[in-house]
Amino acid sequence: MRSESFSDSLREEAAPIWESIFIHPFLVEIGEGSLSLDKFVFYVKQDYAYLVEFARCLGIATAKTEDMDSMRTLASRLDASLTIEVDMLERLGERLGIPLEELRRSELAPTNMAYTRHMLHVAYSGPVGEIIAALLPCVWTYQEIAERLGDREQLKRHRLYNEWCSTYRTRSYAELTKWYRGLTDRLASGSDSLTRDRMRRHFILSSKYEHMFWDMAYKKETWPI
Amino acid sequence: MRSESFSDSLREEAAPIWESIFIHPFLVEIGEGSLSLDKFVFYVKQDYAYLVEFARCLGIATAKTEDMDSMRTLASRLDASLTIEVDMLERLGERLGIPLEELRRSELAPTNMAYTRHMLHVAYSGPVGEIIAALLPCVWTYQEIAERLGDREQLKRHRLYNEWCSTYRTRSYAELTKWYRGLTDRLASGSDSLTRDRMRRHFILSSKYEHMFWDMAYKKETWPI
Amino acid sequence: MRSESFSDSLREEAAPIWESIFIHPFLVEIGEGSLSLDKFVFYVKQDYAYLVEFARCLGIATAKTEDMDSMRTLASRLDASLTIEVDMLERLGERLGIPLEELRRSELAPTNMAYTRHMLHVAYSGPVGEIIAALLPCVWTYQEIAERLGDREQLKRHRLYNEWCSTYRTRSYAELTKWYRGLTDRLASGSDSLTRDRMRRHFILSSKYEHMFWDMAYKKETWPI
Amino acid sequence: MRSESFSDSLREEAAPIWESIFIHPFLVEIGEGSLSLDKFVFYVKQDYAYLVEFARCLGIATAKTEDMDSMRTLASRLDASLTIEVDMLERLGERLGIPLEELRRSELAPTNMAYTRHMLHVAYSGPVGEIIAALLPCVWTYQEIAERLGDREQLKRHRLYNEWCSTYRTRSYAELTKWYRGLTDRLASGSDSLTRDRMRRHFILSSKYEHMFWDMAYKKETWPI
Repeated sequence: MRSESFSDSLREEAAPIWESIFIHPFLVEIGEGSLSLDKFVFYVKQDYAYLVEFARCLGIATAKTEDMDSMRTLASRLDASLTIEVDMLERLGERLGIPLEELRRSELAPTNMAYTRHMLHVAYSGPVGEIIAALLPCVWTYQEIAERLGDREQLKRHRLYNEWCSTYRTRSYAELTKWYRGLTDRLASGSDSLTRDRMRRHFILSSKYEHMFWDMAYKKETWPI
Repeated sequence: MRSESFSDSLREEAAPIWESIFIHPFLVEIGEGSLSLDKFVFYVKQDYAYLVEFARCLGIATAKTEDMDSMRTLASRLDASLTIEVDMLERLGERLGIPLEELRRSELAPTNMAYTRHMLHVAYSGPVGEIIAALLPCVWTYQEIAERLGDREQLKRHRLYNEWCSTYRTRSYAELTKWYRGLTDRLASGSDSLTRDRMRRHFILSSKYEHMFWDMAYKKETWPI
Repeated sequence: MRSESFSDSLREEAAPIWESIFIHPFLVEIGEGSLSLDKFVFYVKQDYAYLVEFARCLGIATAKTEDMDSMRTLASRLDASLTIEVDMLERLGERLGIPLEELRRSELAPTNMAYTRHMLHVAYSGPVGEIIAALLPCVWTYQEIAERLGDREQLKRHRLYNEWCSTYRTRSYAELTKWYRGLTDRLASGSDSLTRDRMRRHFILSSKYEHMFWDMAYKKETWPI
Repeated sequence: MRSESFSDSLREEAAPIWESIFIHPFLVEIGEGSLSLDKFVFYVKQDYAYLVEFARCLGIATAKTEDMDSMRTLASRLDASLTIEVDMLERLGERLGIPLEELRRSELAPTNMAYTRHMLHVAYSGPVGEIIAALLPCVWTYQEIAERLGDREQLKRHRLYNEWCSTYRTRSYAELTKWYRGLTDRLASGSDSLTRDRMRRHFILSSKYEHMFWDMAYKKETWPI
């Protein structure tokens, strides 16, 4: 019997939050191919803005990593974020009729601001283990979301949503998630209980923000003032 | 005719947001002495948690300041935040029946988390001018709030709210606000237009968060998940 | 039998370096009252510049500290550094005929640049335990230096050197050193072995820089280019 | 007549330092093919350790960059540093008989420690313009060194030194230098005079450290204690 890894225990503690993500109307309606396109457009613009801030966190994580192998992989991930992933969103934006300049100037909605400031604060102030723990829910929930959505016949009939979803259903995306989990586990195993506790809290908070992010997009959230 | 200072122009741009602060039910009801005590208790606990994060930003601002005089004043402010201001809130908490341990363990509500992560991110990533611009709305709005509330007869009859309010009506608090504004002006005058624009954006965002903070307290905001 | 504390073990590992500090000509000649005054002037100017950078590190340490009591003490130490300690050096500078403006503009000699950049890098990139470990040798070696020098008859006859030395022979300075050691021990006890190892390395490196700092002053070090 | 760019003015101010680099015995003897191999081995190990810290600074620069194009190029440079450049040094190390594990564990000599802590401190505390200004002398001096060395007949006869040198004589390396200079110029043109002055000071200091780095290698510098 394999003992539970640190990331397993994070996943377990976050389970109720993740369940509420999987059944959020935004994702349910994606799965049914019924999500109103304006909500998806809102989401893509916010995701684009989020990705840039996520990349900044990877830059700092690379700077703070001690072992050369992880440093290399993080630098390669950072490069991929700003090329492959940005390109993917820019192509998606183009198909949705979002002018490139508009996409690039997307302003953070309140939940996106809160989420990215949380990640960036951890990135600047904390050790690499805490940074990765704060980034992990984004990477990992997308894999599970895509897994759950992927088989739906209704989704397959919505070309755009289906393509978006399949981005996160590839073998390479699964490898990526696995790598992030492994890094989290390695970093946790070398850390004291106070650090592991902060890792856990960052993971839970980021999981909450993932849920709130889908909600933000569904409601096309604006600043209250 | 005195030319408009940078902080004057910030104040002017933020005017609609500040107006909405001054007429927020939380503050209107403070002025009438009618605010439900549980909302005030919620506020005090969140303000305590906020103050600690504000102090952290002052620590980093001190570290990043170039001229010795500003460095000394910021260090002195930091010390005062963690002694005089914390003590004031701890005494207020005691009178409200909040056990000290509970006050000290106050967990950040969503808006407080977003606001303090914004400030901390600016503190870690930006120059001192941007940090001070992000901190200024808290200091300054309290002075204007207290000025507007201070003469109300109804407030004077509510001993607790009146005392809380008078903390921000002293000559020394007015001097403090003036010093922060002067520092903002000095730092802005030495800064390029990109930095001044970021200072402006931080000031506006913190002003929005000030409004949202009162709203958070009034609604006793909880995490949606 | 009391078990050895973490700071005891640091002190033990650094013993050979510290011994070489105690017998460095700069300090031997201070003890004999024979140190050439121009070397002492050079030292005071460099120490002034060092103190400002040390204070910056305290600002960041305050920002990164979790428990309120340590945060308060660090903020109070920061304030004291920039008032009491700076004033002490400014008075000393005045007696040595160093104009205040010259003292304040003292440019870092190579060793002082290297030492303070080491401390600042740890302050920005590391957790509070690492910061305190990097700052501790400065505080602690001065106490031991002053203890060893303090009884010398020859020193007592050199009014200026004797007064300088007695600054670090007070009960309050001993308390300060003890507090820093206690904080180091508490932070180490909650830390994983990787962090403790980095704390140890920072302590050793700062101890080396302390030795090099005295040597820099004795040689009135200049930039090679 | 083209007006002088900011990087031109930096180059001009640093000219005396750069001249002393070009005539340093380490490089003169490289050009003659007469440099003692143990000094070159020492250099390669220190350069490897330096490169890792340089890459950390690129990670933070990527995080702090505002415009997407620069962010992408910096991320790509970071990735290249940790793959292409590290591989080049690892192959060079192999040919020099340095075991990979020894190369990777190379400990920073005093000058290398001072130089990299300077760069890292700027990276953590300063804006992207200051970071790039601190990194630029390394990139740029290597191009000029290689240009000057490249035609020497004696160098061509020393296969190893010639190959090392030709790494920095490629068209792509010239493009890289040009890109860094252009970025420095763009960032300077948007910056206030205080920031430009700090950029200038970082550039001069890094230029001094470049000179001291060659001297460190020539003397196979060790810690004085």
